[in-house]
Amino acid sequence: MSNTAEFGLCDWGTSSFRLWLVDGQGKTLSEVRTHQGLGSMADRSFSRVLEQHLAQLGASSDLPVLICGMAGSRQGWQDAGYSTVPLTVNELLMSPIRIAGERDIRILPGVCQRSPAYDVMRGEETMLLGAVRSGQLKNGLIVMPGTHSKWVSLEDAVVTGFSTFMTGELFNLMSTHSILRHAVADAVGEIDEHSPAFIAAVKLMLSGGSLSQQLFTVRSTTLLSDCTPTASASRLSGLLIGAEVAACHQQTSQRQVMLIASGSLSALYRQALTLAGFAVTLVDADEAVRAGLFQSAQTLWQRQEEQHHV
Amino acid sequence: MSNTAEFGLCDWGTSSFRLWLVDGQGKTLSEVRTHQGLGSMADRSFSRVLEQHLAQLGASSDLPVLICGMAGSRQGWQDAGYSTVPLTVNELLMSPIRIAGERDIRILPGVCQRSPAYDVMRGEETMLLGAVRSGQLKNGLIVMPGTHSKWVSLEDAVVTGFSTFMTGELFNLMSTHSILRHAVADAVGEIDEHSPAFIAAVKLMLSGGSLSQQLFTVRSTTLLSDCTPTASASRLSGLLIGAEVAACHQQTSQRQVMLIASGSLSALYRQALTLAGFAVTLVDADEAVRAGLFQSAQTLWQRQEEQHHV
Repeated sequence: MSNTAEFGLCDWGTSSFRLWLVDGQGKTLSEVRTHQGLGSMADRSFSRVLEQHLAQLGASSDLPVLICGMAGSRQGWQDAGYSTVPLTVNELLMSPIRIAGERDIRILPGVCQRSPAYDVMRGEETMLLGAVRSGQLKNGLIVMPGTHSKWVSLEDAVVTGFSTFMTGELFNLMSTHSILRHAVADAVGEIDEHSPAFIAAVKLMLSGGSLSQQLFTVRSTTLLSDCTPTASASRLSGLLIGAEVAACHQQTSQRQVMLIASGSLSALYRQALTLAGFAVTLVDADEAVRAGLFQSAQTLWQRQEEQHHV
Repeated sequence: MSNTAEFGLCDWGTSSFRLWLVDGQGKTLSEVRTHQGLGSMADRSFSRVLEQHLAQLGASSDLPVLICGMAGSRQGWQDAGYSTVPLTVNELLMSPIRIAGERDIRILPGVCQRSPAYDVMRGEETMLLGAVRSGQLKNGLIVMPGTHSKWVSLEDAVVTGFSTFMTGELFNLMSTHSILRHAVADAVGEIDEHSPAFIAAVKLMLSGGSLSQQLFTVRSTTLLSDCTPTASASRLSGLLIGAEVAACHQQTSQRQVMLIASGSLSALYRQALTLAGFAVTLVDADEAVRAGLFQSAQTLWQRQEEQHHV
């Protein structure tokens, strides 16, 4: 039985679709990654897309599937609602909704905060669950960078609050749609966490720089000095990541942070966090979300099975 | 002769074209405003567009024309270069370049700063000249809101430095291209400087709020409360204008500011500046740029005429 899939686990976000078939120990048997995020689902063919990928991976017709992410938003497959902070880490895996149909498909709810400020997350709560449980972390500050970067406070295994920064989306808009696109040109892929431009920009923001004021310097520096597109892109990235890290550094006395990230973002954030004086523990984002989905699936369906056997 | 045009004065920016024919006293005899900014001049037909409008206003073929704004940029008609701060207000009207051709057409240079940070302006220096000379201001802080908002420091009639905020461009990008566009919907034209959402957002930024953190609350507030598009747009505007005013308030001990603006922006900025504790003097932006162009034209061509008569 160890080579037979026990669950399908799916992270369905705004810009990407990831599906893993895992065995009873959480080991990945097969997987698929595509760009079929919500943004490309104008025809709302959620069921068809999921079933096609399940079939391609050889999943049986009764394999249960657990989904997290924007598929559970109002604009997604079906609104899975929100759990509200404060809540315990264990409560993060509670109450997925069930999609009507033959196959047992569930979508995990997002998490919302109503005070001190309104905030929402959807998908990151599952990543958080996976990272925190595997690391046995009970207290701390967790950052999950991305389009909408999330900072979460954990106290005695209770998620007490969180905050979202539009860092990734601002970077994308600035580098493709704003006047800064001429300065950055095609160098977005060449940003280096060790570049002097990146480091100087992070330090500028850590010392109290104003974001909307500093952004324009990406253009004026190009106009008045021989600044390469790579340096401009690194400066833009440093200003935005620096603004985020500076704000959080100021708002907390925590100096340890768990960074849940993958790829080049993890190197950039680790550098910026270190420059701010944070001690950083890195957790792979991909592994974390899969681990979170597996823990939820196990709790959900094994409990049901036990109830069944009683 | 008083009804005969003495000069053509033109403010040619990124998104707009404005041309005034004025008499020897600076009185406007006729004018035209179009959206033929640089952005719509892909065919680079600057000469044709200008001559068409001059002909339509009945200008003689030897009427001299003075231009300020982005027409003098690298991407414009001809690069008019930059003057460098520090410089006196009188130096702002120096050394326009001449366009080759029959008619005497000149473009005023922009102004740049190389220290403490690189910065540039093009067009605002002429507006500043008009506002400052007409008001006899020798010391003070001047703000010119817009796509790229400019803050200028004046000491003993010397422009000592300036700083650019991407406030207007950020507002446009956020309200049309970002995830916040759903919250703001079509309410961009309904922002009210007295709305509680605008005022609360300005105050939040004045008390040290982080811009990239607060921007996302425009979305989450819509998702979790019954917040109207008008309130969301007012909140977005308040966060961005508030971030700008907060940064400048922190960076200067000046508490008097000259606001050079037109239309709805002047009401929003006046409100935000007042909330920050600034005493505000309002100058109409349209009148200021025309006055600045007229002063430059007078100095330029009357001096030449005098030299001619010697």
